[in-house]
Amino acid sequence: MSTVKPAADPETDPRVKAVFDDIRTTRNSDFINNMWLYLAYDPALLENTWREVKAIMATPSTLDPLVKEMLYIAVSATNGCSYCVHSHTAAAKAKGMSAAQHAELMSIIALAAKTNQLATALQVPVDPAFDADRN
Amino acid sequence: MSTVKPAADPETDPRVKAVFDDIRTTRNSDFINNMWLYLAYDPALLENTWREVKAIMATPSTLDPLVKEMLYIAVSATNGCSYCVHSHTAAAKAKGMSAAQHAELMSIIALAAKTNQLATALQVPVDPAFDADRN
Amino acid sequence: MSTVKPAADPETDPRVKAVFDDIRTTRNSDFINNMWLYLAYDPALLENTWREVKAIMATPSTLDPLVKEMLYIAVSATNGCSYCVHSHTAAAKAKGMSAAQHAELMSIIALAAKTNQLATALQVPVDPAFDADRN
Amino acid sequence: MSTVKPAADPETDPRVKAVFDDIRTTRNSDFINNMWLYLAYDPALLENTWREVKAIMATPSTLDPLVKEMLYIAVSATNGCSYCVHSHTAAAKAKGMSAAQHAELMSIIALAAKTNQLATALQVPVDPAFDADRN
Amino acid sequence: MSTVKPAADPETDPRVKAVFDDIRTTRNSDFINNMWLYLAYDPALLENTWREVKAIMATPSTLDPLVKEMLYIAVSATNGCSYCVHSHTAAAKAKGMSAAQHAELMSIIALAAKTNQLATALQVPVDPAFDADRN
Amino acid sequence: MSTVKPAADPETDPRVKAVFDDIRTTRNSDFINNMWLYLAYDPALLENTWREVKAIMATPSTLDPLVKEMLYIAVSATNGCSYCVHSHTAAAKAKGMSAAQHAELMSIIALAAKTNQLATALQVPVDPAFDADRN
Repeated sequence: MSTVKPAADPETDPRVKAVFDDIRTTRNSDFINNMWLYLAYDPALLENTWREVKAIMATPSTLDPLVKEMLYIAVSATNGCSYCVHSHTAAAKAKGMSAAQHAELMSIIALAAKTNQLATALQVPVDPAFDADRN
Repeated sequence: MSTVKPAADPETDPRVKAVFDDIRTTRNSDFINNMWLYLAYDPALLENTWREVKAIMATPSTLDPLVKEMLYIAVSATNGCSYCVHSHTAAAKAKGMSAAQHAELMSIIALAAKTNQLATALQVPVDPAFDADRN
Repeated sequence: MSTVKPAADPETDPRVKAVFDDIRTTRNSDFINNMWLYLAYDPALLENTWREVKAIMATPSTLDPLVKEMLYIAVSATNGCSYCVHSHTAAAKAKGMSAAQHAELMSIIALAAKTNQLATALQVPVDPAFDADRN
Repeated sequence: MSTVKPAADPETDPRVKAVFDDIRTTRNSDFINNMWLYLAYDPALLENTWREVKAIMATPSTLDPLVKEMLYIAVSATNGCSYCVHSHTAAAKAKGMSAAQHAELMSIIALAAKTNQLATALQVPVDPAFDADRN
Repeated sequence: MSTVKPAADPETDPRVKAVFDDIRTTRNSDFINNMWLYLAYDPALLENTWREVKAIMATPSTLDPLVKEMLYIAVSATNGCSYCVHSHTAAAKAKGMSAAQHAELMSIIALAAKTNQLATALQVPVDPAFDADRN
Repeated sequence: MSTVKPAADPETDPRVKAVFDDIRTTRNSDFINNMWLYLAYDPALLENTWREVKAIMATPSTLDPLVKEMLYIAVSATNGCSYCVHSHTAAAKAKGMSAAQHAELMSIIALAAKTNQLATALQVPVDPAFDADRN
């Protein structure tokens, strides 16, 4: 169930075809996952989203590609995004995440959620030592 | 402003003192940040929280200590926990996070929040290829 | 799957029937969607919820009916409420939301989620100029 | 800092005065907390909000008044609402919440946040046994 | 659909078997729900999670067992955790939650979400009277 | 308090100056609010964020500029982003939002949060009629 209906043959739109081709080339795979199929209902939204995902997630940078996927999982689980948890867990496994690393990721994001709740419920005041503005 | 009042001299309670001493030893620092001062209103809650934080965050494991702090920041920002964002950003900097890495972390968690929103608002169906149960 | 079981024939309860009749009249449609069928397990909860939804969403006011549905979608997606995203997207389409407007709504709520994350992770201080109390 | 500015003397509006008087009578106290002072910028919003809060929180029901306040704290902390965490913790203390009960509340809401994160990140399928629709 | 695949016969691992046996004994039931089956992919994560759940939820304490389940539901619904809402609603019913109590729980968590939103959108300043630090 | 420290004179960096100049021109105002001052710690992050905000929020489109600001407020309040609630409420007022419209916005986002909670806590199944995929 979704709130938009993907076109039967989205690549008849040349803007969509160009993005899908770039996804295939960047990932070296023919598989186009549903996120892109559904975003294709609006070519501009598809283009902008893919451009940003490619620039941040598929370009060499200061962070390791696997670390980037784990950060994505952390945010997606916290936001309760089922689709994103699935797609980025698959991506992290494809980039070499071991079962032990996955379990450790689970431990950290669960612990963070727990202490977030404690800090908020106790309304713990921020230590002045943490203020970057003053240092 | 907080919802509990820390004791004037929390270390007169030997259970609190034992935890604070362990925090100082583990971190090799005399600084006890407010999270622990406020949790000390209930020694059992303090002990349990510290035991788990120490086991997960301060013990060598499959993930790099800096990566663990960045994951913590990602969850904390998503949950809107001001205290936790501050304390774990300070910790990440202390563990060597560069300004460029911090900015990249910002880009990733912002992008994840954005695509989480898109996937949820479009109710994109999860691709069967992502189902670990079937593979 | 749900956590309550709707009655086989909920309209045998006159309070439920009265609400369902009012829903049909207000919407000029025979369709009673699941939200109301499930809320009918508790007639008082059904009555109170419908009264408020009708007063706010189905009564002429300072905001356009379509704008109200788009605001509802924005909150529902942010809260990750699958049911609400579906029902209010359907309602917005019924009130004339075009595909272009829908795509623009997606862009805005995705951008807002992104900059929310940046402002929170950077803990940007609120500009005094924004304080209504002082102006 | 707030986004609306309360009137200098809000009770010159008879609708506001009527609500404030009812708050004082219901609570047997002269104190009007900021939530109501700020909501008074729109008398209808003030009336509707107070009517609902009074009906649910200040009327004898199947749940104990202290339990109701603890539920309110649980939701407010999870939503990261600083104001609400403060006001309902104060209310719970006024209704007799002990320090031990408060600490136990902290433990439960922290644990729930943790296992919520685990269930979502693992995408654990709901057991058919839990489906009220089928039972 | 899930992001990890449970073992075909998880109890061949003695650590998993020990936890499952303890779950059965503690609950006086043979039923092992999916949360534990899936967590068993990492025995340490399973052990730690169960130990904490048992200590907090299945040990006599200052709060009534049913109240604890209702608090769990409140947090889980707010976090949008479908699995947790299902499992803890089933648990609450097993501990005697009546339909009237369930409906009242719904009213409270819905009201809290509503006023959380109002307080946050208005940025209502916290009353100094609520500050435990100063009292 | 923030987690990064803005430069004393950020416009000595020509990339920052170019963005700030464009903000001033686009808004026809000399005021640079803190969001941009703090994002300037990383010129690329500043450029990318401003480019997207300008394209979506400051470019004529299918939605009214005031409606766009109200959608931004709805998401920001739901995410608990204090900074964003403040800045976009100020922007909405500058674009003509009346007190009555603001109060109605409050009513809608509060109602949505409430029914989101009900639908999630009841786990109401999505009506097949809402599925765009099938229509």
